[in-house]
Amino acid sequence: MPSRSTSIAETNLSETKRRIYLDHAATSWPKADGVTDAMVEFFSSVGASASRGNYASAMKASELVRSLRHKLARFIHAESESCISFHGGCTHALNCVIHGLVGSSKSIGDGSHLLLSAVEHNAVIRPLLVAAKSCNATVEEVPTDRNGLLDADEVISRINNETRLVALSHVSNVTGAVQPIAEIGAAVAEANRSRADFKQILFLCDAAQSFGYLPINVASLGVHALAAPAHKGCGGPPGIGMLYVSPKWHSAIQPWMQGGTGDDGRSDEMPESMPAKLEPGTMNLPAIAGWLAAMESMATPNELDDSSQKLAALSQRLHVGLNGIDGIKVFGQPGPLPIASLDFGPALPPDDAAAILDSEFGIEVRSGHHCAARLHSHLGTETAGTLRISGGHGTTSDEIDVVVAAVAEIAAQITSLV
Amino acid sequence: MPSRSTSIAETNLSETKRRIYLDHAATSWPKADGVTDAMVEFFSSVGASASRGNYASAMKASELVRSLRHKLARFIHAESESCISFHGGCTHALNCVIHGLVGSSKSIGDGSHLLLSAVEHNAVIRPLLVAAKSCNATVEEVPTDRNGLLDADEVISRINNETRLVALSHVSNVTGAVQPIAEIGAAVAEANRSRADFKQILFLCDAAQSFGYLPINVASLGVHALAAPAHKGCGGPPGIGMLYVSPKWHSAIQPWMQGGTGDDGRSDEMPESMPAKLEPGTMNLPAIAGWLAAMESMATPNELDDSSQKLAALSQRLHVGLNGIDGIKVFGQPGPLPIASLDFGPALPPDDAAAILDSEFGIEVRSGHHCAARLHSHLGTETAGTLRISGGHGTTSDEIDVVVAAVAEIAAQITSLV
Repeated sequence: MPSRSTSIAETNLSETKRRIYLDHAATSWPKADGVTDAMVEFFSSVGASASRGNYASAMKASELVRSLRHKLARFIHAESESCISFHGGCTHALNCVIHGLVGSSKSIGDGSHLLLSAVEHNAVIRPLLVAAKSCNATVEEVPTDRNGLLDADEVISRINNETRLVALSHVSNVTGAVQPIAEIGAAVAEANRSRADFKQILFLCDAAQSFGYLPINVASLGVHALAAPAHKGCGGPPGIGMLYVSPKWHSAIQPWMQGGTGDDGRSDEMPESMPAKLEPGTMNLPAIAGWLAAMESMATPNELDDSSQKLAALSQRLHVGLNGIDGIKVFGQPGPLPIASLDFGPALPPDDAAAILDSEFGIEVRSGHHCAARLHSHLGTETAGTLRISGGHGTTSDEIDVVVAAVAEIAAQITSLV
Repeated sequence: MPSRSTSIAETNLSETKRRIYLDHAATSWPKADGVTDAMVEFFSSVGASASRGNYASAMKASELVRSLRHKLARFIHAESESCISFHGGCTHALNCVIHGLVGSSKSIGDGSHLLLSAVEHNAVIRPLLVAAKSCNATVEEVPTDRNGLLDADEVISRINNETRLVALSHVSNVTGAVQPIAEIGAAVAEANRSRADFKQILFLCDAAQSFGYLPINVASLGVHALAAPAHKGCGGPPGIGMLYVSPKWHSAIQPWMQGGTGDDGRSDEMPESMPAKLEPGTMNLPAIAGWLAAMESMATPNELDDSSQKLAALSQRLHVGLNGIDGIKVFGQPGPLPIASLDFGPALPPDDAAAILDSEFGIEVRSGHHCAARLHSHLGTETAGTLRISGGHGTTSDEIDVVVAAVAEIAAQITSLV
């Protein structure tokens, strides 16, 4: 367990100018090697829009899009590059698939039963509730334990004849819990085998917190749609995200956003082919260049093992450290990712704790409800949410020790005051 | 008129390595001073997400958002900063306002009459047709002349008791025609004065081609909603755009996209306040930093006059030059912006002409339908579209001369072959 001997004053001096960034679950920082260089290079030497011109730099821009699509398709073992569409971010991608499939005139329609869990992010809950309302679908929420972990059987037992969508996050953004996606995916596949086409269940996975940290194989997870941002685990820029849609759902998904697509400009309607039908508007090319650089700097499969071991070791260190501190509640468990939430109790709301960690220790962590509306009733943190510590690829064990020591110091001061 | 004496071979040699970028209507290049520096600076010294944390760098990120919102609100003379929301681009902003207001359960509902023009971009046409279908609204298209120019009276005469939306682009992206927005806005205001609240007409302006080039005052134009990108006239990055909504429509507009908003994370619904209700998901902060830099490098009102005069002079030079060339059809007229479309006839489709201009002359222009589905039947260019030449803030009169000479050279070769 890390030493608790550092006083706030000492830490304050020794940590002056140092920035310990532990809000990777919001966005990663610093970005992966080569990301900003690639973006600058795009602006200086390409600049043009993709799919919008028959000249060399426009074609170079299109080539960047193709390269990234190819790389991401391989990364998640997608059936083809046409399964990957680009969006303004993960929230955008989730809205695209939810509104593109659920609604009165869409594939998943009137009276359907839709399943999500209590750990979902507002980026899943909110669009799903709006879409469900438009077609009188019922939405059922699967509860979680106090660490935000789902029981696969609890999910599977709720699938019924009317169930058309199961929407789950891969990793909780509040506690870091990794959900049993593959087990649920297998059960969905089994259910689909005996169902008519119009009763098929779509299994949607929100990979916001796992993409770039954990290996993702859409076939072995059994997911039909998966949304992910560039700016978290991949270390890429914000403003770009991707959606994977499995080929069997390509014709069912309707364009949620409509606009120009460069090609097929004569029609009043979006093109029918994937991924063009989901990609109107000018592409965010500098972000695509940045994401491509991030993917290129990503660990090879062998290195990925080292990286996974390192992240798991940080998670262990973080949770063991926090669990040894008296006077706080910790949510989450040691696992693949260094994420934990905690609560100092009514004497120190999470917002104030975050401000103290920043001003006194130079440690940046997030406080509040983390856009996970429904989880906090399960954690008992409805009022002020939690303080969340989240590390990423660049996080060191020293940084984990410093944040654990700082939390211990604050907890000790509260205890001495109470 | 520019000399036509340069042969293709001579031009090819003399122009080697030189890039004449005349596709500003697709995206501006190079970007405004300071844009890439601001983006790099964001990644190196801020990095955090806005509205997502109670620590200094997250607050710096939020401050960037506030600064840009403030600047844009002043730039278009908006009533308040809450009228400005940020989106993934102009297409995204247009979808947000169209789908947020038009639909069976939305403000503009069943049986409405919606008015657009034949020059609209697919970013207006396509979402409007989808939204109209959902509520059995009728969509009427106002024709244009062969230069893509609307007659204000033609628009105004079509407004009837059921009309609830007039959606027009400020400037045609194909011909550069500047539409009589203020005149139409005054007529809409006059019609609204005698109408009940539930019959008010929304006047939506697509400022994709004018924003950053022409002064925009939403009050004097009489528009209630206006969408604009960063990456065209402002010289900012792609991946970010804005929507202006006038206060009288704030409560009517429904969130088209739903997700986390940082604050108000406990509710299952999007916040009701503007602009938060339209801004779910992680903001594209580097793009916001870049756009802010672009706005800061923008001409002051006095300099803007010089800039406007320069653009108008380029437009004059381009159109006079092109109109002096035998064997081509030119669409558009001299005006405030240097945009023109042309057609070499069946002997040289626009795509081939663009490829020749690029490979032989180092000139980058766009060919095709320019995502303006309905205009080409008015121009007689349904089959292959047009070749579009579009300059921007960085364009020089020499570059206009070179492209005019190149077009003349190609036209002469076609004539000699026919």
